[in-house]
Parts: sequence; structure tokens; C-alpha cells
Amino acid sequence: MNPIKIVIAGPRGKMGREAVKLVEVTNHFQLVAVIDKINDGLKLSSIEGFQQKDVPIYKDPEKCFQLETPDVLIDLTTPDVGKKHTKLALQYGVRPVVGTTGFTEDELKAVQTLSEQKGLGAVIAPNFAIGAILMMKFSQMAAKYLTDVEIIEMHHDQKLDAPSGTGLKTAEMISVNRPEKRQGHPDEKETLDGARGAVYQGIPIHSVRLPGLVGHQQVMFGGDGQALTIRHDSFNRASFMSGVKLSVETVMQDNNFIYGLENIIE
Amino acid sequence: MNPIKIVIAGPRGKMGREAVKLVEVTNHFQLVAVIDKINDGLKLSSIEGFQQKDVPIYKDPEKCFQLETPDVLIDLTTPDVGKKHTKLALQYGVRPVVGTTGFTEDELKAVQTLSEQKGLGAVIAPNFAIGAILMMKFSQMAAKYLTDVEIIEMHHDQKLDAPSGTGLKTAEMISVNRPEKRQGHPDEKETLDGARGAVYQGIPIHSVRLPGLVGHQQVMFGGDGQALTIRHDSFNRASFMSGVKLSVETVMQDNNFIYGLENIIE
Amino acid sequence: MNPIKIVIAGPRGKMGREAVKLVEVTNHFQLVAVIDKINDGLKLSSIEGFQQKDVPIYKDPEKCFQLETPDVLIDLTTPDVGKKHTKLALQYGVRPVVGTTGFTEDELKAVQTLSEQKGLGAVIAPNFAIGAILMMKFSQMAAKYLTDVEIIEMHHDQKLDAPSGTGLKTAEMISVNRPEKRQGHPDEKETLDGARGAVYQGIPIHSVRLPGLVGHQQVMFGGDGQALTIRHDSFNRASFMSGVKLSVETVMQDNNFIYGLENIIE
Amino acid sequence: MNPIKIVIAGPRGKMGREAVKLVEVTNHFQLVAVIDKINDGLKLSSIEGFQQKDVPIYKDPEKCFQLETPDVLIDLTTPDVGKKHTKLALQYGVRPVVGTTGFTEDELKAVQTLSEQKGLGAVIAPNFAIGAILMMKFSQMAAKYLTDVEIIEMHHDQKLDAPSGTGLKTAEMISVNRPEKRQGHPDEKETLDGARGAVYQGIPIHSVRLPGLVGHQQVMFGGDGQALTIRHDSFNRASFMSGVKLSVETVMQDNNFIYGLENIIE
Repeated sequence: MNPIKIVIAGPRGKMGREAVKLVEVTNHFQLVAVIDKINDGLKLSSIEGFQQKDVPIYKDPEKCFQLETPDVLIDLTTPDVGKKHTKLALQYGVRPVVGTTGFTEDELKAVQTLSEQKGLGAVIAPNFAIGAILMMKFSQMAAKYLTDVEIIEMHHDQKLDAPSGTGLKTAEMISVNRPEKRQGHPDEKETLDGARGAVYQGIPIHSVRLPGLVGHQQVMFGGDGQALTIRHDSFNRASFMSGVKLSVETVMQDNNFIYGLENIIE
Repeated sequence: MNPIKIVIAGPRGKMGREAVKLVEVTNHFQLVAVIDKINDGLKLSSIEGFQQKDVPIYKDPEKCFQLETPDVLIDLTTPDVGKKHTKLALQYGVRPVVGTTGFTEDELKAVQTLSEQKGLGAVIAPNFAIGAILMMKFSQMAAKYLTDVEIIEMHHDQKLDAPSGTGLKTAEMISVNRPEKRQGHPDEKETLDGARGAVYQGIPIHSVRLPGLVGHQQVMFGGDGQALTIRHDSFNRASFMSGVKLSVETVMQDNNFIYGLENIIE
Repeated sequence: MNPIKIVIAGPRGKMGREAVKLVEVTNHFQLVAVIDKINDGLKLSSIEGFQQKDVPIYKDPEKCFQLETPDVLIDLTTPDVGKKHTKLALQYGVRPVVGTTGFTEDELKAVQTLSEQKGLGAVIAPNFAIGAILMMKFSQMAAKYLTDVEIIEMHHDQKLDAPSGTGLKTAEMISVNRPEKRQGHPDEKETLDGARGAVYQGIPIHSVRLPGLVGHQQVMFGGDGQALTIRHDSFNRASFMSGVKLSVETVMQDNNFIYGLENIIE
Repeated sequence: MNPIKIVIAGPRGKMGREAVKLVEVTNHFQLVAVIDKINDGLKLSSIEGFQQKDVPIYKDPEKCFQLETPDVLIDLTTPDVGKKHTKLALQYGVRPVVGTTGFTEDELKAVQTLSEQKGLGAVIAPNFAIGAILMMKFSQMAAKYLTDVEIIEMHHDQKLDAPSGTGLKTAEMISVNRPEKRQGHPDEKETLDGARGAVYQGIPIHSVRLPGLVGHQQVMFGGDGQALTIRHDSFNRASFMSGVKLSVETVMQDNNFIYGLENIIE
């Protein structure tokens, strides 16, 4: 079997660097070029941290797709650049794997239409951490059978917003299988405001912020005499790469457009 | 809608008492009789702890099924009695819900054949704790994507065997989705025997035994920069009742034989 | 060594029954009588659930102390009764071990004065669960070195108040070693009210309420690249008895008044 | 107050780099020089990764101590170098803070004697992670009151030895307060070898090894109806720096020799 020929957009970013490593250590993956806004025409091996990578750098994605005829584009840039690259990739016969939350529903539909016209697989995913996706998917499934649930998400204390995006997304996914209901005792009362957390779709979400933590979430279900807890710990950026790998494999085998890694997982 | 008419075999046992409570608090369930080896002909309300239950006690299950025409039999007795009751119930048009691990493969096939002939649902389950079933099912699913896993099961220190049955069953279910492989560093070594746990199908299982604990298990998956943990806590016997309830509802809607609660869960 | 002669007040209550069991299974403890508002003059063995206990029941505590000359009174009644018994016990030369939160500071001082005059040990404790006391004490100690901390307390969903008394008490004990400070990012914001929990002395407290849970609390400290978590699980009422046992042993050895089990623990 | 003048030996190592950062961000600390086997006579600012640090590099520690008259030496080199530096530092009036496990008992005594002669504080510590030290110390304290305990230590799957050094050290510290005893049911049996873990001083230790994990340990105590869990998570190397900081502050205030951070913690 020939290796899958891959182009990475945004190789110098934190995620991009991990993606380069991923392709390097995966036997059936082959890096053929990178797309970057600087260093056009140079070799990646001339850039600090990429000494082993003797592949060309392109500023122009169209030129890259034409000359290199890759199988897959991995795009870990910004939403705006990602959108442009996704469209161009499909037009040039390249399957896109894109990590961003920035697409509107209309934009997603347009990608889907183009993917169908070209008969090419495409994956757009807001979150590539497979463990986090599994946590959300299992939580959704469990809510059919255990309908009382609370979410505790824990992050480093430099995080600005509470609850986290993953916390809210988890509550949303649970709500698909669980009609909104009031939990706790009807006469429950907070003697200090906020004790019972934020409530989203009837589900309490608690946000812990402490120095030293990275990204952690646990979803707790309670029932008659029992509890079920599903927890994900993200210790570093590498946690996103197993999802990128799965997505690359998926776009090569499945000629459909998929939004969200949870729709790959069976 | 008429309530589901239920007979309980073994009402005085610890599980049986919980089952009586379950039927009592469930609106669409109705207890019509109990089967017990003593007190034949008396009312259940004459037995200590059941003062509110004005239903007859039968020693003879056939007589019970004929006279009471129940929809469902809940059997929480011993394997031998359970097997006899299961067969009789189906013969008399009663759907059995049976909690035991005692059936051989041949005996299960016989129940399946009878269930098909009669067109009646039947559930036999070694474990009715829905949270535990979900833990095992999710672990099986996760093993497709995160292939390194260890099991920690924790019980009170009066438990004689290690690992627990649930620990072994979980490893078995995981193995369906994960070819046996050696985990850990190839040169890993135990400086004290047993540190790396028991190994079943290549999966380390660690058994903790401490006074005060009840029944707990966590399944830990590790991957690139991340961990996924699925944990079940059983705090008391009531934890089994939600599975019994689901099984009663299932045998009324689905005219098939089902072995193991994991095959009800979607 | 002679066994310690013990009187229990309130033997029929849930805690009292556990105390009777504790004395029964402890070799160097001996139950000599009980104090109860009913059944005066009967034997405890005539009361349901106490068949093995051939000791007298007294309605009048003074008569009990005079005739039985016990070493220790274990009182697990109500605050009002407990206060009366504490005073009488010391006056009659009996060391009191009392579980209640009901004493005012003045009342505590009065007990201390009496204890000193008589040269008799006395323990009054709002919480006898040794594990919970250790959790609070360790949290207080840790706060000297790791100054960012959050508390997550988890209880069954029939609990009315949030945060729990233990949660607040823990925050209070931590505050002794940690000047109140604002935690988290200065620009942090809640996009849903309550996400960051209740704040007591600058310490966020999160209250989880789910069916099936019993009484659980974890105190999480974060620092440079690390976290320290101290957790207590109370699975049932028996959890209080190890603290009662320690208190009985303490009042026999130490002729001082002690308020709070944390002041026994070294 | 004048800042504490600090010399760091081994600045280019992974720990050394963290130590340089620590001194940089701590207001009352001042880096005055580094000791390194290469680059003698250069400025640290000429070395990659240290552009901001305009301090001299010395190959000869004696020359460094004479010319720079530092208050404290932080040594994060190898055992052999560390031993030599410790002795020289004290001879030149510099308080050593040394992170190594390599000292024999005789060598430790020699350092103590020299420290006493000079009237200078000195800290030698095998482990500088304050959270880990607190976990061990609290475990030792808890064992007085809850005598059944098991240790679960969890590390990445590149670790070669099991159990971990911290796991063994924890069991050793617990044993100071807990006579060796057999735990679990007397008739307990392993149906698969290793299920109940390694046993050290009667304490089961379980070693989990999974990719993605960093360094984690939890110590679980069980008692009547309750459990107490003390857990430490080390997420990255920065976790060691709070202990180095505490040690520097300690050697300036306390003119004694201290072996092991647990002897600083109160």
C-alpha cells in the first residue's frame, strides 16, 4: 500500500508542529509539503525545529495542490484561512482534515455540497481529542438510562471563560437524550450563591480553576445506589493528534463529509 | 394503559425485598403475587417487613401463573430455582426477568428456543446494575480508539476472590475490540512481584480490598497526552433495581430473548 | 486491664444503635447501662434489636451514674439533652463523649471549667468521622504550601442546603493558614452564573447533588505543574464510630476538655 | 530586604532550566552566577534559551563562591558532582540546596557535621515536589487512625521499574506509624497472580503504566463505612520548583541541616 500523501498548513504553530511529528511517526503517512505564509520556496528543513524534513514550503495553496497532488490536507491554522483552504483543497481533489470551530451552518453546508460533488471525504472538527469525544458520546448514551447528571470541568487558572466550551457542548449532547428537568430536591437552597453551579439545559456545570491543572472534565451520573463517572484528562497538546490521525484515515476510506469527530466514532 | 402485572419469586431475600420496593414505587407496575417456598396460602402482608402488600403467596409456581395470569415474573432466587421458574413462566405465557449467572450455554439456548416458540420476551442477566453495564459497554467501545487500558476494581475486604467477576468480564468485553497485545515498556520489570497486577487478555487488572468500600471499578485508558477513565460506584443493593425495571419494560415491548443487560442498552 | 465501663444515652436512635454495636465489638469496652426516655427499669435485651444486651435501662441519668459508676458516657441524643447529660456526667465523675453541634461558646466554656475542676477528660465533637476530620486537618496544613484551593462536596439529592456544613468548615479551617485572596485569572468571567461556585473566604465551593451518592468531599490544591487532592467518602453511618472509639480512649487517658476531633488527631 | 543571592549548578539541564526560571520570577531571589562544566568565562546570556540572563558562567565552583559570595547554591546536577559542590559550598559559607538521592548515610552525616560547624542551613532532598511530600506526610499521619491502606501509583508507559520509588517511600513512611499487618480477608485468594498487587511492609502497591500519563499516585485508606484518599498529580517538571523555593527560604532562616522536604513541612 502506498503511504497517504499529506500537506500540512500552519506547520510552525503549536498544533502544526505536533501534526508534523504525527506524520513523521506514522508509517503509512508521508509529508509531501507544507503551506505557510512565510518562507515560500524554501525547504522545511531550513526552519528551526524541522531539520529532518526535506519538503518544500508553499505560500500559494493552489500551486501546492497542483504540483504535489497530495491525498490529504491537514489544516490547523485560523478559521478564515481554514475555510479558504478547505474549499480549494476539495476543488483540487484533496481531502481536507480541518480543526476549527469557525464554520457557520451555511459554510458547513457549502463544504458538504462540494464534498458530495467531488466524491471526496472531508472532516471538520472543533476538537480532535479522541478521549474528549468519547467522554461526550458516552455521556449522551448514558443519559438515556441515568437521567441525573452534573459536569465538573477543571482547567488551569489562566482560562478566562467559565464554563468551558467542552462543558457546554457536553451538556448540549446530553440534552439530546434527556428532556430538560429540574434536578435536586425541590426545596433545595443555596446558602451561598453559586454553590450548585451554572445550569445549562437543566444540567449543573461546575468550573474549577487552579494553577498546575491542564484540561480535565468529569461527567457524573447518579442513580439508585450507584454512580457512573466518565472523565477525560488532557495532559498536553499531543492529545489532539490521535483524532487527526483517525480523521486522515477516515477521509481516505469514506467519501462523505463529516462534522465533528463524534460522528466517526462508532 | 393497564399496569404491568408482576409476580416476584424470592421476596424475602435481600434482592427480593428491593424488587418488592421497586414494584411498589413504579406507577405502571403492579405486584399481583409472590412465589416463596414457605408461607403458602398466606398473604404477603402477614410477613414482617411487607405489611402494606396484600397479595397472595404461592409455593407452587404453576398454580400462581394459572390463577394470577401475570405479565412478568421477576426471579431473584438461586440458579437452580431460577432455571425451573424461567421454563415454567414461558410455558404459561409469562415473560421472565431472571438475575443469575448460573445458566450453561445449552440452557440459554433452550430458553431462547422456548421464548421464540412462544413469541415472548425474556431477559436473563448476571448483573442488573445499569451503571456497571454502561461502564463495560463504553470500555468496549473506547478500546477501538485507545488501545492501552488497565482496570482497577475496589471492594470491601471481606471479598474472597481477586480479580472480581466484573473486572474479568470487563477485560473480556474489551478484548472483543482489541487484539491481545503487550502493554508497557518492553524492558519493564517488577522489583516487587505483583506490582503490575494480574493480566487477562493482555489487560492488567488491579484489585484493591479495603474495609468501608462497597463495590467500585475504574477502567483507565491512556493515549497520546490524554487519559479516559470510566468509573462505576455501587453504593448499595438498590443499584441493581434500575436494571430490573428496564428489563421488565423491555420484555413487554420486545418479544425476543436477551442475555445480558448490555444487549438492551443502545 | 479492666474494660472501660460505658453508658450510652439514646440507644434506640440510628447513631445510638451503631454505638451499642461498637461497644459490643470492642474488647476493652463494656456496656453497663443505657439512658432512654422510655422503658425505664426494663432490660435493654427486652427491646427489639438488642436481644443480646442484658443491661438496665434508666430514665434518670443521675440514678444511672450513681448506681452504675460508669467511666464514660457516650451521648448521641439531641443538643438539649446532650447539654444536660454532659454537666451531670462530670458532676458524677463520668467522662462525657458527646456528639452534637449545639453548644454555644459560653456553654463550651462552662463544660471546660467543670472538666478542669473535676480533673476529668471530656470530648464534644460536631463530627466523629475520623476520615473527614483528617481531610479537614490535612487541608489546613496543605494550605500553607499550596495556596490555591477549591472544594467539591457531593451528596445525595435529598440534601436541602448547599454548600454542606463540612464544606464550609473545611474552608474555615483552611483560612486559618491562608490569608483570603482572589483566585483564578483577574479577568475571568462566568458566561453562565454560578459556574465558578460559591465563594467562602476566597475559596470556591462546588456542591454536587445526585441520587445514589452518600456523603463525599474532595479538596483540590493546585500549584506549579502539580495538584494535591484530599478526598473523604462516607458510605454509611458506621463511619462515625471510629471517632467515638478514639474519643472514649482519649477521655480515659487525657484529663482535659477537647472540642472537635481535630484536636485529638496529631 | 536584600534579595537572596543565588548560584545555580547545572543550568542547562531540564531541572536547571526550571530553576533559572524560578529565580527569575521570584522577587526576593537574585541569580548572580551559574556553575557549568562548559562555557567557562562566558555570560549565560550568550547561551541559547537564556538571552535575558547577564550573569557569568564558572567552571570552577570555588572561584565562583569566592568571587560572587552567594547566599545559596542550588545544585541540580548528578550525585557525584552534587556531593562535591555541597561540601565546597559549606566551606565557602554558601548554603546548599541539593536535589539528589545519591548520598549514603555516612555522607549525609558528614554534611550535617560541616553544616553545624559552619552554622549554616543546608537542605538535601530526593524529591522537591511539595505536593508529593505532603501526600507522603499526610499518609503517614492518617495511618495512625486508619490502619488499612493501599497505594496506586500511575505513570507513563516508558517507566521501567514498578513499583515507583515514591510508592515504596510512601509505604515506608506509613510503616513508621503502623505495625506491619496482613490486610484483606484471611481466606482471600488470587485467581490470577498479581491481582492484589505488590506487598511492601504489608501494604499493597499497584503500578499502572499507560501512555499519556505523567506521574500520579493515590493512597487509599479504608475504615468503618468510609474511605480517605490522598492523591498527587505531577503534570510537568515545574512541579519540583515550589520545593526548591521553600528550601532556599528555609536555609536562610534555619541554620540546621535538613534531609528530605518532609522535615521542613509542619
